[in-house]
Amino acid sequence: MSSSNRQLSLNLFIYPGGHHEAAWRYPSSAPERAFDITYYQELARRAEAAKFDAIFFADGPVLADNIRYSSRFRLEPLTWLSAIAAATSRIGLIATSSTTYYEPYNLARLFASLDHLSGGRAGWNIVTTGAAQASANFGYPEQPNHAERYAKAAEFVDVVTKLWDSWEDDALVIDKDAGIFADDEKIHAIDHVGPHFRVKGPFNTARSPQGRPVYVQAGSSDDGRSFAARYAEAIFTAHQTLISAQRFYADIKHQAAGLGRNPDHIKILPGISPYIGSTEAEAQRLFDEFNHLVQPAYSLGQLRNMTGLDLTGHDLDGPFPRHLIDTSGPNGVASRFQLVVDIIDREKPTIRQLINRLAGARGHYVSIGTPEKIADEIQTWFETGAADGFNIMPPWLTGGFDAFAGEVLPLLRKRGLFREEYAGRTLRDHFDLPRPDSIFSGVARASA
Amino acid sequence: MSSSNRQLSLNLFIYPGGHHEAAWRYPSSAPERAFDITYYQELARRAEAAKFDAIFFADGPVLADNIRYSSRFRLEPLTWLSAIAAATSRIGLIATSSTTYYEPYNLARLFASLDHLSGGRAGWNIVTTGAAQASANFGYPEQPNHAERYAKAAEFVDVVTKLWDSWEDDALVIDKDAGIFADDEKIHAIDHVGPHFRVKGPFNTARSPQGRPVYVQAGSSDDGRSFAARYAEAIFTAHQTLISAQRFYADIKHQAAGLGRNPDHIKILPGISPYIGSTEAEAQRLFDEFNHLVQPAYSLGQLRNMTGLDLTGHDLDGPFPRHLIDTSGPNGVASRFQLVVDIIDREKPTIRQLINRLAGARGHYVSIGTPEKIADEIQTWFETGAADGFNIMPPWLTGGFDAFAGEVLPLLRKRGLFREEYAGRTLRDHFDLPRPDSIFSGVARASA
Repeated sequence: MSSSNRQLSLNLFIYPGGHHEAAWRYPSSAPERAFDITYYQELARRAEAAKFDAIFFADGPVLADNIRYSSRFRLEPLTWLSAIAAATSRIGLIATSSTTYYEPYNLARLFASLDHLSGGRAGWNIVTTGAAQASANFGYPEQPNHAERYAKAAEFVDVVTKLWDSWEDDALVIDKDAGIFADDEKIHAIDHVGPHFRVKGPFNTARSPQGRPVYVQAGSSDDGRSFAARYAEAIFTAHQTLISAQRFYADIKHQAAGLGRNPDHIKILPGISPYIGSTEAEAQRLFDEFNHLVQPAYSLGQLRNMTGLDLTGHDLDGPFPRHLIDTSGPNGVASRFQLVVDIIDREKPTIRQLINRLAGARGHYVSIGTPEKIADEIQTWFETGAADGFNIMPPWLTGGFDAFAGEVLPLLRKRGLFREEYAGRTLRDHFDLPRPDSIFSGVARASA
Repeated sequence: MSSSNRQLSLNLFIYPGGHHEAAWRYPSSAPERAFDITYYQELARRAEAAKFDAIFFADGPVLADNIRYSSRFRLEPLTWLSAIAAATSRIGLIATSSTTYYEPYNLARLFASLDHLSGGRAGWNIVTTGAAQASANFGYPEQPNHAERYAKAAEFVDVVTKLWDSWEDDALVIDKDAGIFADDEKIHAIDHVGPHFRVKGPFNTARSPQGRPVYVQAGSSDDGRSFAARYAEAIFTAHQTLISAQRFYADIKHQAAGLGRNPDHIKILPGISPYIGSTEAEAQRLFDEFNHLVQPAYSLGQLRNMTGLDLTGHDLDGPFPRHLIDTSGPNGVASRFQLVVDIIDREKPTIRQLINRLAGARGHYVSIGTPEKIADEIQTWFETGAADGFNIMPPWLTGGFDAFAGEVLPLLRKRGLFREEYAGRTLRDHFDLPRPDSIFSGVARASA
């Protein structure tokens, strides 16, 4: 796609009640439908009607802290998206899954199946799982460290790529008369032997419509950036300022080019949580409504997870005790930690101001204003090397999405920045990404 | 349910093209739709229209031998059934998954999610995975032996049961005004420590509609029977004769009662593959049509898998060389091995007769005849202590199922043996099984 008609990519990031940490308490949210698949199918259909590229589910194999005050349970994304696939026909379906706690053969099957049953709409958000407590659900005496998790992730991606490629695209023959179902010369053992995995293969199902699901990545640490530059086709990232997003964008595209990749084949999609009002004051009032629903006991726990600092008992309206943060500690390598420290240094907030700020979208960009203002910000980021699109994180669902689709999207369309209709059928089509050939294409099989 | 109105349980066991090993070659089968989810959704809707209890998918994390001649690839069952759930509303959804090659936390999530999104229709066919080659896809230097796999399976079931129970049924509060989403006193860490697994918990999602999926089991070795008597709520089993099925039935119910279980809460469901004709001769001609599609190169491989004996090069029309079978070898403990040896000893077949016999349904009972004859057999097995119902294995799909539903089912209904309408909504309702309380019900939480 030439830059003259370059189009925004837009995903709907679905959290059960919405992205504000108190979204489930908002009067028009529907937490009683939190386990009702039809609620999510309806949301996905709305996103599809809006011609969004994809919907997206975060995930982690652990119960988040303090479920008492928040709706932060987890829906298993691959089953959930399979049921959503059956209720939609075009929109992409991106599931988060962990390379630290899954067996590659099992996870490869789940994603290939989602890609088959959705007609080529699967995306995989590759994470190493930051939550330390997850390790105790999988028999680890302690959490594998950051670098170790990324090394394992790289090998994991290598293994599943080979599995997804192990049936060449034309391996299925299905010749009833000749009695040949598949050409076994085109189905390859992968014989992977590495430090973390030994996987013989071949895979036990045919290559999926997209060849492989779209590879998505969401970590922004140094390890995360290197990993993304090498493997990712879309990146979800969190930035509080245009300049931070521009630097990240330039770094990733530069690193990717250095690895011989086409930088256009990595879509960089910062998160944005829009609070929309017909005037600035109305939008601010909407944000304040959510602030009133915040429960500090919960928010301080979230802050502790991000910074290692427990401020329980401190005066919430006093200045943030910056000197208590240990930037040399084990949190120091995590990108979200750095983002919070940057906010504190830049804005000098009180504790309450900081927790309200983070309550909006856990460190993602919160945009408060009129539809015009929000459309302007999106356009600016898109046109000044900060973003190829956005991960839309409505404060609450479904109303927060409807406001974006109803009020901001028409402005983006009027400016020629976002599609009126889908041009293709697969998530790769929507993201304008190539369909990869199998690495085994044309390779003669060494042994039957 | 009193014995006077005791009803058959009927499952549709779905293999992509059907159960005959050459089903995909049958003129009216549709192997080109093998990866098309709508094909399976249509099948499930037909089974639901027939008021079947459930559909069922086998599985194994390995590519079967000799895909060249057969459609024996694998559809990942949990994603597939999630998409089928979205197209149906009543029928049960039973997926096979391996306790040898999955992490319990991950598998517990997939099944709980299927149960949530289907409104309580999930069943888990618990297998240890017999196929030796699977181990090479998961880094094992060799396959864990039979007893070791069953020991691990028992611990696995223990772990996932605790995870499914870890949120008590009333843990979800969702009180917007009070700001309480869940009562964390009713969400329990499981703190499991055992020889195979260490899993802390709690689970990361609310208890599912059925509490737990229905526990299904399908191995009939001594280890398999003990396991089934302890854990299973439904058993899929293979028998060639009424007397064999009666013995199995009596043994399981006796063992279960000895463990303090209610024998009525274990449904014993032999497989049956019906070849239906309006006369006996027509039914036999139908079976012969399939025999003509058999490819001995494939069938001999199947026979080798079951018996350890490779008969390639032998005269197919000569007597089966019984003396070459090693009954003291490692296959000796597998129930399918014993079943094949029994057929040979009882029927003294030629090699070709044996492979045609096994091609029908891999050792499951093949019933060839008029609708009346097949209905009589089902009634006899049901009423003489051999079966609580059947796993229906149509020779080909979808026609083989339509013939059963259209011709045999009305006879069973006329005889008062099978429901006209669903009485409930969940798979436990259909099977007339109780919904289990959480093991943590009423247990005070030791620590927050």
